[in-house]
Amino acid sequence: MKESDEFLILQKYFKNLGSQYNDSSGIIVGPGDDAGLFSTNKLDLIFSTDVSNSNIHFPKSLKPELIAYRACSVAASDIPACGGTLKWLSISLVSPTTDLAWLKKFAEGLKLFTSDYKVPVIGGDLIKGRECSVSVGVCGEVNKKDFLSRGGAQEDDLIFISGTLGEARLGLKVLSSKKKNLSKEEKKYLKKFLKPKVHTSLGKNLQNIATSCIDISDGLLGDLGHICNQSNKGAEINIESIPHAGPFQDALTWGDDYELCFTAPTNREKEINNLAKSLKIKINKIGKITNTRVIKFYNGEKRVHLKQTSYNHFKK
Amino acid sequence: MKESDEFLILQKYFKNLGSQYNDSSGIIVGPGDDAGLFSTNKLDLIFSTDVSNSNIHFPKSLKPELIAYRACSVAASDIPACGGTLKWLSISLVSPTTDLAWLKKFAEGLKLFTSDYKVPVIGGDLIKGRECSVSVGVCGEVNKKDFLSRGGAQEDDLIFISGTLGEARLGLKVLSSKKKNLSKEEKKYLKKFLKPKVHTSLGKNLQNIATSCIDISDGLLGDLGHICNQSNKGAEINIESIPHAGPFQDALTWGDDYELCFTAPTNREKEINNLAKSLKIKINKIGKITNTRVIKFYNGEKRVHLKQTSYNHFKK
Repeated sequence: MKESDEFLILQKYFKNLGSQYNDSSGIIVGPGDDAGLFSTNKLDLIFSTDVSNSNIHFPKSLKPELIAYRACSVAASDIPACGGTLKWLSISLVSPTTDLAWLKKFAEGLKLFTSDYKVPVIGGDLIKGRECSVSVGVCGEVNKKDFLSRGGAQEDDLIFISGTLGEARLGLKVLSSKKKNLSKEEKKYLKKFLKPKVHTSLGKNLQNIATSCIDISDGLLGDLGHICNQSNKGAEINIESIPHAGPFQDALTWGDDYELCFTAPTNREKEINNLAKSLKIKINKIGKITNTRVIKFYNGEKRVHLKQTSYNHFKK
Repeated sequence: MKESDEFLILQKYFKNLGSQYNDSSGIIVGPGDDAGLFSTNKLDLIFSTDVSNSNIHFPKSLKPELIAYRACSVAASDIPACGGTLKWLSISLVSPTTDLAWLKKFAEGLKLFTSDYKVPVIGGDLIKGRECSVSVGVCGEVNKKDFLSRGGAQEDDLIFISGTLGEARLGLKVLSSKKKNLSKEEKKYLKKFLKPKVHTSLGKNLQNIATSCIDISDGLLGDLGHICNQSNKGAEINIESIPHAGPFQDALTWGDDYELCFTAPTNREKEINNLAKSLKIKINKIGKITNTRVIKFYNGEKRVHLKQTSYNHFKK
């Protein structure tokens, strides 16, 4: 068989990604068999999957190692958003090319992610298609009583977000500009788009504090809307308290930041502030949950009206 | 929001697929949150993922409900091939269209699969892309001591296959011909391509009988090659004993049949024949494992040479 054979590519580049973490993640059989085999100490597990497609989630020309890393970050982000701990990843790649150098670089991006987050790859699939599409499955552990759903927000709960919104949007602009000699800020924004932080520590620590949580993938307004809808509640938001970069409307309606938005009872505020300090993560209180089923925005005392949109693949 | 919004599509068509089996599969939180939550009685689980792409795995014009069903069959087949029991599915769809009727039909195909195999959908992702790509993740349960790997074949083990090879290939030809008024045989072949049987009962029953197992997705020669490679063994195959339909070479090198190929010690042959009878599945002995690392083919006593190829996305 030639080196370009699918099976040999899988053997050579995709077989041992993060396998140094197999033991800690309970993986008994990794890539290379019909299925991966894993054991678990906990009886409750979580699973999520996210597809990243070229020209939708990232520019077609993005380097393969960056496509791979970002696809993992984006998918993995759902696990801390549920209060869970990352256990393993599964990678399905529809590759736009049979170029071995491209595939090798893609695998290097995966490898870097597995080592940054100490998480192994249990398996996957590799096919050739017209456009690049990466479907990443992520498994995590959490006790069911600690699962942070979108539907647990209570009236008068405070609403918090981590980080600064809009940075990833600016990063994408930097990327698209193909500018060289970037400023320190531009580099920061670019990193935010390419390698959004997966809030593993924050998510785990919010288990017994937050009443609901979501990762901001489609924009704060849309994602806070999911919390409100599924909790059957509304919200009052003080727009001045939302840390943002770039145009305000973009920061609220464009996704890609993968910060966490969560709610917690008022008496947990101090604990949350201490957590932010100890984890060195910026966390801001941006409003509170109401019983109205409407999200209202205020600039100080004055009510303001924002267009409530979020990224939507099927909007016509 | 309009009905065409991604979130509402997910809510309407994709939310409760197979949810009547949530309890039996331990699903506590299904689609609609950041991740699905499930509990497990066993401490060992298996996971596999398979991508089905238009123009590679199925014709672009295939009806959405058939694309969906087939993608599930193909992916689910890996679970019995490891001796496991299906637990849940996860569906990532890159949809080639925003047409609601198409999406609804796709969801109907998923629903039919969940009900045929009594397995729920834990979650997924839905995006719009240029070509249709369905990535299906499947989770199953199996005790690690019962996991059927590709690498367990022993010298002198007998080699068995279920069913008849080549039927799916003929089915694809029937499909491509767009012929109407099909004969009974043609209908059978078409069904074999569109809805390959997932050998759930056979796989489970082979747990304590077979020494290795694989589902024939890329053709017998390639897949038996995986068993031999990973077991560090060879094989002698009597080609007359391979039940096939259509051209012999096609039947051996074209995949899509999703029959099981497995090995077992000689003293289990009678048990296997009884199992075949009780499950009403055709199982044929086709040869035996050798210590040579070569696969040899015989027609009676006479050695024959076959081109050992299998489907390969990356062959140049």
